[in-house]
Amino acid sequence: MTTEVTSSPGTGQDPAAAARRTSQVLLGRVEEHLRSFLAAEHDTWAAVDERAVVAVDALSDLVASGGKRIRPAFCITGHLAAGGDPDDGAIVAAAAALEMLHVSALVHDDVFDASTRRRGEPTVHAHHSALHTANAWQGEARRFGESVAVLVGDLALVYSDQLMSSAPATVLEVWNTLRAELMIGQYMDIAAAAEFSVDPRLSRLVALVKSGHYTIHRPLAVGASVAGRPDLAPAFKEYGEAVGEAFQLRDDLLDAFGDAADTGKPAGLDFQQHKMTLLLGWAMQRDDRIRTLVTSPRHAPAEVRDRLLDTGVPADVEAHIADLVERGCKAIADAPIDPVWRDELTAMATKVAYRNA
Amino acid sequence: MTTEVTSSPGTGQDPAAAARRTSQVLLGRVEEHLRSFLAAEHDTWAAVDERAVVAVDALSDLVASGGKRIRPAFCITGHLAAGGDPDDGAIVAAAAALEMLHVSALVHDDVFDASTRRRGEPTVHAHHSALHTANAWQGEARRFGESVAVLVGDLALVYSDQLMSSAPATVLEVWNTLRAELMIGQYMDIAAAAEFSVDPRLSRLVALVKSGHYTIHRPLAVGASVAGRPDLAPAFKEYGEAVGEAFQLRDDLLDAFGDAADTGKPAGLDFQQHKMTLLLGWAMQRDDRIRTLVTSPRHAPAEVRDRLLDTGVPADVEAHIADLVERGCKAIADAPIDPVWRDELTAMATKVAYRNA
Repeated sequence: MTTEVTSSPGTGQDPAAAARRTSQVLLGRVEEHLRSFLAAEHDTWAAVDERAVVAVDALSDLVASGGKRIRPAFCITGHLAAGGDPDDGAIVAAAAALEMLHVSALVHDDVFDASTRRRGEPTVHAHHSALHTANAWQGEARRFGESVAVLVGDLALVYSDQLMSSAPATVLEVWNTLRAELMIGQYMDIAAAAEFSVDPRLSRLVALVKSGHYTIHRPLAVGASVAGRPDLAPAFKEYGEAVGEAFQLRDDLLDAFGDAADTGKPAGLDFQQHKMTLLLGWAMQRDDRIRTLVTSPRHAPAEVRDRLLDTGVPADVEAHIADLVERGCKAIADAPIDPVWRDELTAMATKVAYRNA
Repeated sequence: MTTEVTSSPGTGQDPAAAARRTSQVLLGRVEEHLRSFLAAEHDTWAAVDERAVVAVDALSDLVASGGKRIRPAFCITGHLAAGGDPDDGAIVAAAAALEMLHVSALVHDDVFDASTRRRGEPTVHAHHSALHTANAWQGEARRFGESVAVLVGDLALVYSDQLMSSAPATVLEVWNTLRAELMIGQYMDIAAAAEFSVDPRLSRLVALVKSGHYTIHRPLAVGASVAGRPDLAPAFKEYGEAVGEAFQLRDDLLDAFGDAADTGKPAGLDFQQHKMTLLLGWAMQRDDRIRTLVTSPRHAPAEVRDRLLDTGVPADVEAHIADLVERGCKAIADAPIDPVWRDELTAMATKVAYRNA
């Protein structure tokens, strides 16, 4: 089907460039795997009823609309860094499963946050609510749109698992932990926001579970597990937790100060929803003026933003992000992996910590 | 751990009673498996944070609150009828997975239907919305309650899969079909209700997917698959489709004319939500007066109920249910299974078709 990566001519090539090219080829295979999986499901369901393809097509649209593919990238890098065979189909399936799980999380998350835009397009629930209104259907448009989005996310969750189903037991163990963590981390996140919890420890825990583990550590561990190298788990954990914290701080900075044109979603959502972000928790611990403002009832979201700027938080958090990237890279300094892949993981840490979208 | 079923004294026992007793023992093991699985998850998460156990405990409460366990019962019966080993732990895990999937579906379904009671208790979203209101938390109580319920259902979906994860590939194939069917069937159900679709073909399709396949045919097929008997699939399919239709018609009758004290949920919900139920689709095809009423705008739910009674639908549908049960039993008349299990499947068909809750 696909040309073997290992059979491609590599003589005289820069090893770093060759490594990155291998990653890119595998990421391309993940896209093709997701696309062909959903196309086959579309065909199966199209034969049943025209309505039966709506949820499948919503997933195809979301997959096609882009995204950073951070989890597949870490999964593939974990596998290759662990010396895994680039032509092992299991790594492509595992990385595709991680992305499909993420699609599920995004669709449900957009309902929790009442977000109307994602990747520059209407979110699933916003689209179906609008359809409901335009057609003057029975019942409440909001409930209809959100119910469809819950089912679309459920279907993605089922498909993610189906994509992972032929993985060995060692991989499934990491996968099961990752998924339960995601759901429980999400719950803690919305509960903390609702309770307006001013608890930096809880902010850190949520960031650790949702970013450190879900986005970086566990995808790397899944990749290493597919390669049969569970021995790399501790180094990947330390790297993932540090780089994950940097990733989350960047996410919070982008939400607070970023450009909606780059991120594809409105800015300042976290402040509006009174989310006790990692950024806010961190800033509060350093400056009492932030704490005083955040804990005062009826403060405006824009005030928080201005106070953060006044107290020099953005510059300080940049320094903290740099420390975290360094700490993450140090964690893999002595890990038994090829230096080429160590360099690639260093480059990836920098990339996620300094992205602009 | 548990006493082996096959080692229990069975000399001189009535074979039918012995068969039913074996089923009961396995159903008891399913309860214990679900209970201990969730207890272990509780312990893992309690060590992380007090908030981290909320979703797990919501599932424990739901499992403990009862339910008919129809899917585990058909799964176990399918296995035993196929000559499967009663002491094979895989059948207990598979039946537990089916029940956990059902818990997930119930929690999400209650959000779609805005149901406030389930099994005599507040639904997950109603409970968390009430907590939100009582504590005067930030944001909207409805969104909070529903978001928690979506995550609790997501966690159950993940756990259902974890329970099924050591099953062989032949079982996973049935499992994957069953789950995608469930999500897509649910979507078609809510879309048909929103569009106020007066299409008996669609009502039948939804009933086939949601009841025939999800509740009876596929659980039986999962059980037979665990026993290594895929040859029974066609007979179980025919049985499941007929008995599933009877099951769904009874469900619709209970919703329309049943006693809320028995069912644990308010009566007449389907009419209120303008659901094109199998009962209504069937009645419309037989009597134009029903079609005229149902398609008229602004008809009252109580009118539909009264018109069904006036036109003698309940008695007619009872006769149809009897036909379906007979058809289902005929489908397994020549299947290569022990006569004791054929009789048990006949008894189960009668039980689901004539239940009062």
